[in-house]
Amino acid sequence: MITLTVIGAGLIGGSLALDLKECGFADVVLGVDTNMLHADMAQQLKLVDEIVTLDEGIERGDLIVLATPINVIKQLLPDILTAIKPNQVVADMGSTKGSVAEVIREHPNRAQFVLSHPMAGTEYSGPTAAKSGLFEDKAAIICDADDSDVNAVDLIRRMYEAIGMHVMYMNSVNHDLSAAYVSHISHITSFALALTVLEKERDEKTIVNLASGGFASTVRLAKSSPDMWVPIFEQNAENVIEVIDTYIEKMQAFRQGISDGNLAEVYRLIREANKIQKILK
Amino acid sequence: MITLTVIGAGLIGGSLALDLKECGFADVVLGVDTNMLHADMAQQLKLVDEIVTLDEGIERGDLIVLATPINVIKQLLPDILTAIKPNQVVADMGSTKGSVAEVIREHPNRAQFVLSHPMAGTEYSGPTAAKSGLFEDKAAIICDADDSDVNAVDLIRRMYEAIGMHVMYMNSVNHDLSAAYVSHISHITSFALALTVLEKERDEKTIVNLASGGFASTVRLAKSSPDMWVPIFEQNAENVIEVIDTYIEKMQAFRQGISDGNLAEVYRLIREANKIQKILK
Repeated sequence: MITLTVIGAGLIGGSLALDLKECGFADVVLGVDTNMLHADMAQQLKLVDEIVTLDEGIERGDLIVLATPINVIKQLLPDILTAIKPNQVVADMGSTKGSVAEVIREHPNRAQFVLSHPMAGTEYSGPTAAKSGLFEDKAAIICDADDSDVNAVDLIRRMYEAIGMHVMYMNSVNHDLSAAYVSHISHITSFALALTVLEKERDEKTIVNLASGGFASTVRLAKSSPDMWVPIFEQNAENVIEVIDTYIEKMQAFRQGISDGNLAEVYRLIREANKIQKILK
Repeated sequence: MITLTVIGAGLIGGSLALDLKECGFADVVLGVDTNMLHADMAQQLKLVDEIVTLDEGIERGDLIVLATPINVIKQLLPDILTAIKPNQVVADMGSTKGSVAEVIREHPNRAQFVLSHPMAGTEYSGPTAAKSGLFEDKAAIICDADDSDVNAVDLIRRMYEAIGMHVMYMNSVNHDLSAAYVSHISHITSFALALTVLEKERDEKTIVNLASGGFASTVRLAKSSPDMWVPIFEQNAENVIEVIDTYIEKMQAFRQGISDGNLAEVYRLIREANKIQKILK
């Protein structure tokens, strides 16, 4: 009998609650959300069995999952670890791991906490964005597993496997660098693309009419919430800036090639970029 | 009874041939392709009824559609217009229009030619990428319609409507600027993203494992063929460079905000970018 407490009943927390209840991993799901509207919605949409206060959620959850923006995770986590009993396990689902690890590095209950990151999501957020099957066949990263109790890590691994995820282990430093390259930068390139088009093409009807599937796909992530992404860019600033710099260099290489009429160079750049096809299938 | 000649039996030409045959707009479809492998495939995949030489295709087609890369369109078009009889109509499907308009501006048969651009496609190319339904519900642009015969324009409009497209009219100068903003830049941002990730994340397994749906969506266009895109960037260089410059400014704004820890500014940029949601739905 596992009672799951989900703190933050939005896209990630709500989807997790749905799947863990459905597959039988959790018997009871408690939801905590400081946004009253979201709390009500989560209950109406039956994402959780009960909405409870933070204190009650901490008191009753065998497993407590933090699925809030990363700044809120860092703010709540130390007190949660202080409040729990020896048989309880806590995990977070934030997109950056190093700064979370930092705030509880010396905490006496550190071993009851598991740093993790399910690599799944959509450009939407809040309880209405939650859906079952969101995590299926995606990767879940568990970071710095050696700093956690073996049983706690095992519980989180089983939780992710129960919802169809492939579990990987990494240290938080490598995770944050790779996440900057493979996830965080994609959001910035989409935001920048949206800003560019919105600034230059003031006739919205032209955008709608000319936007093919390619543009829609490339700009999709620009719909993502600043409440989630600003803290990620803040926490992972050093890596993100490094990636932006490399990215701008690549854009400059295209600009230079096109501007010089150096078509062989532009061709070479595209052929090189095409290699992503082999990797992603 | 319409005989359609498709020059270039790849993604666009092949898909067009399939749909126009299926809906009854074309009775016979002739295919021309200098790539013998593609020509064979187009016939095996039944995209076209017959593979013919360029001369035979020009001779027999009531409607001749150019669906090759843009540099080949410009190369072939003047001779095709010279060769046709007064009852024949020619259209192209290239992604940039100004430079095509230029090469036949003074041609005596200019009126039998219609400049057009169906805003549809995928990141794949060649006959195996062709599929029915590719154009449905997308926009087709007819440019500089006043320079074409009314009946020729009407035939091309009916052709696009027969495959489910919404026809719009623009002049080629506006088309090329808007296409740079809404289509061409998306490809460059994807190519640059792929190059960035490939350069920095040398461990392919990490890319595969960490790549969520967001990255896959943003980088999808990086699979696109240089044979198609190099000529587009060449022909639309001035507009494309203008867009790249605006785009780099936006990336720099993100870099600056993140680097300064100016979270309010990063928040503002994302909120602004989010407006694309209202436009694209």
